[in-house]
Amino acid sequence: MSLRPAQRWRAFRSHPERLFPILDWGRRYDLPTFSADLLAAVIVTIMLIPQSLAYALLAGMPAQTGLYASTLPLILYAVLGTSRTLAVGPVAVISLMTAAAVGEVVQSGAATHVEAAVILAFMSGLMLLAMGCVKLGFLSAFLSHPVIAGFITASGILIAGSQIKTILGIPGKGQTLPEIALSIWEGLPAIQPVTTGIGIGAIAYLYLSRTRLSGFLKARGIGGHLAQIITRISPVVAIAVTTLISWGFDLGAKGVPVVGAIPAGLPAPSWPLMDASVWTQLALPALMMSIVGYVETVSVAQTLAARRRERIDPDQEMIALGASNIGAAVAGGFPVTGGFARSVVNFDAGARTPAAGAFTALGMMLATLTLTGLLYHLPQATLAATIIIAVLSLVDLRALPRTWHYSPGDGASMLVTILATLLLGVETGIITGVVLSLALHLYRSSRPHVAVLGQVPGTEHFRNIDRHDVVTAPDVLSLRFDESLYFPNARFLEDTIYDRVAAEPRIRHVVLNCAAVNAIDSSALEALEAVNSQLSDAGVKLHLSEVKGPVMDHLRRSHLLENLTGKVFLTQVDAMRALSPDLTHQTCARARCETARDHRGRIG
Amino acid sequence: MSLRPAQRWRAFRSHPERLFPILDWGRRYDLPTFSADLLAAVIVTIMLIPQSLAYALLAGMPAQTGLYASTLPLILYAVLGTSRTLAVGPVAVISLMTAAAVGEVVQSGAATHVEAAVILAFMSGLMLLAMGCVKLGFLSAFLSHPVIAGFITASGILIAGSQIKTILGIPGKGQTLPEIALSIWEGLPAIQPVTTGIGIGAIAYLYLSRTRLSGFLKARGIGGHLAQIITRISPVVAIAVTTLISWGFDLGAKGVPVVGAIPAGLPAPSWPLMDASVWTQLALPALMMSIVGYVETVSVAQTLAARRRERIDPDQEMIALGASNIGAAVAGGFPVTGGFARSVVNFDAGARTPAAGAFTALGMMLATLTLTGLLYHLPQATLAATIIIAVLSLVDLRALPRTWHYSPGDGASMLVTILATLLLGVETGIITGVVLSLALHLYRSSRPHVAVLGQVPGTEHFRNIDRHDVVTAPDVLSLRFDESLYFPNARFLEDTIYDRVAAEPRIRHVVLNCAAVNAIDSSALEALEAVNSQLSDAGVKLHLSEVKGPVMDHLRRSHLLENLTGKVFLTQVDAMRALSPDLTHQTCARARCETARDHRGRIG
Repeated sequence: MSLRPAQRWRAFRSHPERLFPILDWGRRYDLPTFSADLLAAVIVTIMLIPQSLAYALLAGMPAQTGLYASTLPLILYAVLGTSRTLAVGPVAVISLMTAAAVGEVVQSGAATHVEAAVILAFMSGLMLLAMGCVKLGFLSAFLSHPVIAGFITASGILIAGSQIKTILGIPGKGQTLPEIALSIWEGLPAIQPVTTGIGIGAIAYLYLSRTRLSGFLKARGIGGHLAQIITRISPVVAIAVTTLISWGFDLGAKGVPVVGAIPAGLPAPSWPLMDASVWTQLALPALMMSIVGYVETVSVAQTLAARRRERIDPDQEMIALGASNIGAAVAGGFPVTGGFARSVVNFDAGARTPAAGAFTALGMMLATLTLTGLLYHLPQATLAATIIIAVLSLVDLRALPRTWHYSPGDGASMLVTILATLLLGVETGIITGVVLSLALHLYRSSRPHVAVLGQVPGTEHFRNIDRHDVVTAPDVLSLRFDESLYFPNARFLEDTIYDRVAAEPRIRHVVLNCAAVNAIDSSALEALEAVNSQLSDAGVKLHLSEVKGPVMDHLRRSHLLENLTGKVFLTQVDAMRALSPDLTHQTCARARCETARDHRGRIG
Repeated sequence: MSLRPAQRWRAFRSHPERLFPILDWGRRYDLPTFSADLLAAVIVTIMLIPQSLAYALLAGMPAQTGLYASTLPLILYAVLGTSRTLAVGPVAVISLMTAAAVGEVVQSGAATHVEAAVILAFMSGLMLLAMGCVKLGFLSAFLSHPVIAGFITASGILIAGSQIKTILGIPGKGQTLPEIALSIWEGLPAIQPVTTGIGIGAIAYLYLSRTRLSGFLKARGIGGHLAQIITRISPVVAIAVTTLISWGFDLGAKGVPVVGAIPAGLPAPSWPLMDASVWTQLALPALMMSIVGYVETVSVAQTLAARRRERIDPDQEMIALGASNIGAAVAGGFPVTGGFARSVVNFDAGARTPAAGAFTALGMMLATLTLTGLLYHLPQATLAATIIIAVLSLVDLRALPRTWHYSPGDGASMLVTILATLLLGVETGIITGVVLSLALHLYRSSRPHVAVLGQVPGTEHFRNIDRHDVVTAPDVLSLRFDESLYFPNARFLEDTIYDRVAAEPRIRHVVLNCAAVNAIDSSALEALEAVNSQLSDAGVKLHLSEVKGPVMDHLRRSHLLENLTGKVFLTQVDAMRALSPDLTHQTCARARCETARDHRGRIG
């Protein structure tokens, strides 16, 4: 799980299929698998065409770049990915983040929309590739579940809000909820009735087909998976119908915003603009998109793999996603990631290997070559309707009270992330969430459970004096820390020991029971050295007991053991026998029990 | 330890001395204590005068502001602080951070040096006060020991480097080591021989008095504490002698930089400039200074308190330090914190209560009223020499190999913090260190120790199959996580379970042994819910065993227990009796031992 680069290289030499999983499944590829993959690819392609166009518009990009972003990335993922069924491509949240990041750069005039988006995809790809190679997948742990859930809910709301203006046919922009609301308010007098009609009609159709179509089909004997797939590709019908209407009445010429001319054919390979200032501006957004996209990808891939008892390799997924994003840049697209809905469709449609993704890419290329002329009349409102219906499933406000009920701290993290994202924008929102959840984590880590130990009379067992009838010696304080000793709790360790010793002047020995300590980092080591030295000045000796083997080996690399004023005891009972020989074979005398009660204090 | 504001208010009503510790010790104040405090105050005052002037210059401020910063803050700390011997005032590292933060604002032209420093002290004070009131002292846990040690070492180097130009009498500035080195290099032709002579003479005298004077005095029968105190106040001799020389030869008029005219008398209370853009620019530096200053204060206070078995209250220290900084702002000074050297002198000189600090403040006011005229001729090179000698003790490069040897990860954190601080400046340095140490912490937290459990034949004990001869059932996987389940390891939990289940097709039951789990946060709860649902799709049931009472109570607030496909068992043996009745009363059959070996895999 933690190969160094050199080890990794040796591992690759002996098992090249770890870096190129295609070498593994490709070897066993046969006709039935091919048929299954091809069928799934056809279905995913039909679903992906409207999504790609829609998310390009959401990202502020020309519509065709959405198609481009659904070609090369899918092929690269097929070669490098470890998930059998993950479908990568443009997704809503990443497109919104692209719009936000690119918007700032374009405002400063340093690059065009397309240039900035290509750089963003390229940087994000490089970052993921680099992080995957040195196995930094754990960085996704920076995003706690409440933060990512809150962020996605807020993003869904922002996305839906941003599409309302397209539905109404009014201009407007804005990257926070107040800005979006204001721009809609200001645009209200300019509503275009025809556009609005098409948009609302499309929303109604899409909503009904999503909520009712599946049940309707089932009632007519069409089974679960097939019904779901038909439901998923129903947006194509909306696209076809509204395009026909728009073409029939020549709505584009009458002021209804349509997709317009799309250059036909495949894009020439692009190369990102080398402008240091633009790269610097986009570095932080690229990092955040990388991590958010990676978290989503791994979640989806893991969910689907587990259902079939398949395995994925999270670090390899990082590499595959990185390559896909570089592919997106080369194809002139924008950042991509694994999409939940389309991966589920791919899975349900029976895809067996990543080849299905490669076939989807071929399908998208075919679409790029043939369909672009047909899409001229497609009303933008139809795409906006597609987006609104798609992101409704992202918004899960019920998670907030549920999380709050389970853990108010986590609920607060989620709420703050939602509010910060809605009111301050996606970048500030996610950074706020991350900082808050880290602070919460440190807060919890900084106060581990600590027990003052006493001896269960007549036994060799030692237990928390607050929960058991135990005896203690007045001059010995035995403390058990129920957590590894590391920097978040190093000061708490010092505080606790000093407080206890200051509170009870009879104490001459402190025994730190390390039974629950799996590691001691440098900060905790310094704390222990300080405690040892300060207690010595105060005439108190520090002892350790029940130190685990690996921890002891580690401590031998420091000077703590040499300088320790007390001893290291194998067991707590050894410590008590040495420090308080009278106590250890007695039963609970009244005086001693009172002493135990004296020790009970602020420590819970 | 975790009072809410309302509780805190009630606690204050019944125990006002918790918020105003002066009410506690003031009640028992008597003549012997007064004499002891007064003597300590005289000694600290003599030590503090040159330090205050020197650190004002280091902070880029007029010399008198150093004296101002040593008045009101000390009085406020005396009223609010819980340490009996901590001496607050200007210190080297915080002065360097002030110079860096103020420099940026002054360059932008938004405020003068003094205005910006006053705002900085005021903001830092407000932040500390607010954090102290809501008990955010744990935020200091963000700074691991390697990071703070590396930062202080690098700051010491930067400070010493920045003073070389003053010793040489050349102009120059710069906030990173390359900038400082370049500015000295460029200034070399303009070296002033007299200034350099005074500077080097002062350095030699101060160095010798620091390293040899104490031994010299001891050899003449002057005891430990007294010898140390004489050593500490010896800079005053350097100041007096060089001032006399400078006055005698009128060096100021001959181009040797001297302190010059200092307005005599106490400052009028100042009020920080209300300029939102300056406040915004200074917010992050103020936050960092608050936390660095707080960490230093608490470390010093705790060290000294522990020696006398006294107690300090870390949250109350935050309030006291906050009030001191607001005091520094009102007095027209710059940010202050608890200084190590002067606190030790105060302690060694016999200070018994914070009143010593208040008396020191009176001494400093007297100095402000009387000495300023005398200091006109004081060469700046003498102050620079004082600073260089003072910060030498901050530079501890030997800590680097020691820490590296103990823990390469912690050593790397320290090295990167040192390099980033030296090469990129104090703010970037400390942020880099914090981010790196958090990442390292998350990395370690993200992969807790996991054991696959088997039954010790003939007993009810279950142990790690990698370390003991145990038996397992082929269709039951028992996993024990040796860590609480929370967001840094939530994904690892999922990965681990899915990997094990995918690797062994016979598994029908997964038992998660929670004996070492002290808490389950929302992220881990979501992970468990996902595991439960995905395993169910794969035909595997999820069970829990040995869940601790408080964790169980917590889980009851979620839907996990209702939806759990398996059961919750009180003990591991109950689980095995229910899931694999044949196994639990048998001894190790060969076939079963082999199964145990099969389960041994990537989990260490």
